[in-house]
Amino acid sequence: MDTTERAALIRAGDRRALARAITLVESARPDHRAEALALLEALRDAPQALRIGLSGTPGVGKSTFIEAFGLMLTGQGLKVAVLAVDPSSARSGGSILGDKTRMERLSRDPAAFIRPSPSQSQLGGVARRTREAVALCEAAGFDVVLIETVGVGQSETVVAELSDLFLLLLAPAGGDELQGVKRGIMEMADLILVNKADGDLKPAALRTVADYAGALQLLRRRPQDPPGFPKALPVSALGAAGLGEAWAEMQALVAWRKAQGHWDRARAAQARHWFEEEVRQGLLAALAREPQKGLMASLGDRVAQGRLTPEAAAAEMLHHLGQAR
Amino acid sequence: MDTTERAALIRAGDRRALARAITLVESARPDHRAEALALLEALRDAPQALRIGLSGTPGVGKSTFIEAFGLMLTGQGLKVAVLAVDPSSARSGGSILGDKTRMERLSRDPAAFIRPSPSQSQLGGVARRTREAVALCEAAGFDVVLIETVGVGQSETVVAELSDLFLLLLAPAGGDELQGVKRGIMEMADLILVNKADGDLKPAALRTVADYAGALQLLRRRPQDPPGFPKALPVSALGAAGLGEAWAEMQALVAWRKAQGHWDRARAAQARHWFEEEVRQGLLAALAREPQKGLMASLGDRVAQGRLTPEAAAAEMLHHLGQAR
Repeated sequence: MDTTERAALIRAGDRRALARAITLVESARPDHRAEALALLEALRDAPQALRIGLSGTPGVGKSTFIEAFGLMLTGQGLKVAVLAVDPSSARSGGSILGDKTRMERLSRDPAAFIRPSPSQSQLGGVARRTREAVALCEAAGFDVVLIETVGVGQSETVVAELSDLFLLLLAPAGGDELQGVKRGIMEMADLILVNKADGDLKPAALRTVADYAGALQLLRRRPQDPPGFPKALPVSALGAAGLGEAWAEMQALVAWRKAQGHWDRARAAQARHWFEEEVRQGLLAALAREPQKGLMASLGDRVAQGRLTPEAAAAEMLHHLGQAR
Repeated sequence: MDTTERAALIRAGDRRALARAITLVESARPDHRAEALALLEALRDAPQALRIGLSGTPGVGKSTFIEAFGLMLTGQGLKVAVLAVDPSSARSGGSILGDKTRMERLSRDPAAFIRPSPSQSQLGGVARRTREAVALCEAAGFDVVLIETVGVGQSETVVAELSDLFLLLLAPAGGDELQGVKRGIMEMADLILVNKADGDLKPAALRTVADYAGALQLLRRRPQDPPGFPKALPVSALGAAGLGEAWAEMQALVAWRKAQGHWDRARAAQARHWFEEEVRQGLLAALAREPQKGLMASLGDRVAQGRLTPEAAAAEMLHHLGQAR
């Protein structure tokens, strides 16, 4: 199948063509890579979905939230794609979304599309594949693309750079546990959703919401936020409560950002970021190919034996690569 | 002054020459850089100090510990240098060691040398300067080089790659707070020292030691450890208690690692790591110089305007840089 046919099928919303195209962008084979680049270029003018990043540690009910939130959106006639960024999945042997039974109803919903994290151990690789999968989902006409992460290392930063909105899902906690959420993560959040606001845990959830609302007020106001944002809200994924309110807040935030020009500026800055990141990764990848690889190894041996300082060896390698220091 | 003179003064232990040489390696000026490389090459065969990495969040008493531990070592006739890795110091406007009054006695000790973190906001830059400063301190005949970090982001990993031993300094804590220490940091530690094992806090400190000793046993045994390591020990920096025991454990660990060949292997692997890192940083630095910088900017503009995908723009840039993908 050629690129034009592939592109047409994806634009027509063909599920199988989309799944195959994502497999294509996940492939490391040079011929696949060339096809993937051509396909992405052919789909460049795709409509924009709302890209929602979602982070939360295991146990906060992320799968349940995605299922309930996704079903609410499809119930409103929206098409929803769910992708994952999980650089650990290669090691742990199973991606967070690998077990689709955890989102049984959503995975059977014809208006939903769920794709597990690519099995790559390098966050950079996962980020690239996920970014390209997001572009493919937009071309396929999805209205909302949810990008989830378990928050391993730097993966939240990656997901935030892929998203228009960033949600942080938390469990009810004691007042002292606020510090368990890293400040950097909190500063990324547009909405903090405290899950399990139901049954016995409801009072604790409401207290946690109040605690985070207070903490959010202490953060410096970001230019991309209208007054009152970022917000903390209670939700119950299990009881499907608070999801409509959360969605209304997201829509209000998006409308404001679009009106103020922040949406376009953020998308442009993200595209530039990924271009620069791709160049950096491409440059570094050259070191792993011959003849550079062999020279790196032999210079590395001399450094390891103490016959050359790391600095002198690096200068020699960079000279070989045609880089003045 | 030429390189040979500089090198001779440093080898003779001249304090002012050492301080000036560290300033030289911290300079970004190309002519300074060339001098620095020549100096490091001239000092390549320096004797080895024991490089001790030390991490601990603010409030655990790190300065007090370094002062007490350093004075104990100088009291035994050893020469002690203290360096810092603090990538945040440029932003916060003051390095953790900037205020030498926090180590008043040690800073006046003729057998000690204290140098604040270089004021660079990039961790990569701080790491290189610190690594080169360590090499200079070794050439100047210091027996022990302490490298401290406040543990901002990835700085522990950097310090561990610079060190022969890695110490984690903790405060007494409730039993539930064990999870506050990231697993990755714990896996780096050779010794966990629980400070403030004095007065009212002593029982809590001893409990914390027991908790961490238990947690350490659950970690996978590392090839570079004799049975029983890594260990958790109580210390009181304020009361100068437990420091001799901690030092004895460090010496035992070092002796074992030297006898088993782990010491030399680790040093060789670290030198290779820094060589490779230096090459990577050098390659990426080329993107910030003309004419690459201008091309990056103009391709980035086209990506930001949606006229080119990040992938296609990156392919064009890499082609320009002479890199096949």
